[in-house]
Amino acid sequence: MFAGEYPSQLLENAVEQFASLPGIGRKSALRLALHLLRQPVENVERFSGAFTEFRKGVKYCRECNMITDSEVCPICEDGKRDCSVICVVESVRDVLSIERTGRYHGLYHVLGGIISPIDGIGPSDLPIEKLVERVKSGAVQEVILALSTGMEGETTAFYLYKKLSGLDIRITAIARGIGFGDDLEYADELTLGKSIENRQLFKF
Amino acid sequence: MFAGEYPSQLLENAVEQFASLPGIGRKSALRLALHLLRQPVENVERFSGAFTEFRKGVKYCRECNMITDSEVCPICEDGKRDCSVICVVESVRDVLSIERTGRYHGLYHVLGGIISPIDGIGPSDLPIEKLVERVKSGAVQEVILALSTGMEGETTAFYLYKKLSGLDIRITAIARGIGFGDDLEYADELTLGKSIENRQLFKF
Repeated sequence: MFAGEYPSQLLENAVEQFASLPGIGRKSALRLALHLLRQPVENVERFSGAFTEFRKGVKYCRECNMITDSEVCPICEDGKRDCSVICVVESVRDVLSIERTGRYHGLYHVLGGIISPIDGIGPSDLPIEKLVERVKSGAVQEVILALSTGMEGETTAFYLYKKLSGLDIRITAIARGIGFGDDLEYADELTLGKSIENRQLFKF
Repeated sequence: MFAGEYPSQLLENAVEQFASLPGIGRKSALRLALHLLRQPVENVERFSGAFTEFRKGVKYCRECNMITDSEVCPICEDGKRDCSVICVVESVRDVLSIERTGRYHGLYHVLGGIISPIDGIGPSDLPIEKLVERVKSGAVQEVILALSTGMEGETTAFYLYKKLSGLDIRITAIARGIGFGDDLEYADELTLGKSIENRQLFKF
């Protein structure tokens, strides 16, 4: 047996770096490292390069805080978007998820986190003042809160509500209820209860 | 919606590179890319650097073909290993698996693949002559074949057997049978059949 877990320190380093990623254990990390060994050097260079270039080169939209390659993101720059609505989300991934639905045509405001006393994240750590400014300065008529449920998401939503409620806009939240195709019997009670409370006129 | 799937070409590249890894889909790739975004730049540089350094710097042991950082791997260099036995395996991972058992103290010979006409891999593409030379030149008394079962593994094992059978050594194969702790009722018939054929004297 050799000193470390592997006969090569370079392999050890590569495995360690893969295993530092969320959801990747040391066994998968080894598999991935050995996969790279079978690729041409140029491909491995392109592989590695993509991450540093991304990390160093990516910008945040000066309007909505979405990631972008330029000063303003493609959504904020798109003249066809409805500038009267801003949807507040926690993360870049939430924007991508909503965009994939193809059902929303307004703008976004990416908080990049939520208020979380446990993690030491307070309101001043999030671009909330910037949101207030955007609402005050522009043609915004509605702010949609699309934050996660749970203590922290609700705290953040409440804080935003207090901050925005003096302004002359509608503040809405995305609908919560039973998903399409979901069986009632498998739904949790909170969701099912809310979906009954928040029932809407039947449309066909 | 933006032109591509993402509002940033740099993100797109990072996702594409992660998704090029085996077992990682585009959704996971996005999650990993956004994870990197939250890490300090130095960490991402160390992350990327580890892979190119590994790919470019890793060497193959001139004796057994195992990956190593020097000319000869730590196993071949270890004077305490039993030089009279060589265990032939397909891959680096197989060596690591056997080493983890702590039950084998001989040397290895890593083929780096198996004979596979479909993939265009013939005997001459594998370091088989090198194995024959090792056996001829040294104090080797036994070669253990630890190749995968199935058509290709068996073809390779048979080829090796033919190559080595003229030499004055024992050629053995690892035992196949029911795993420790496995229930007979769940074992496949081939394995169970073989484990009965290859039964051994009961020892306690």
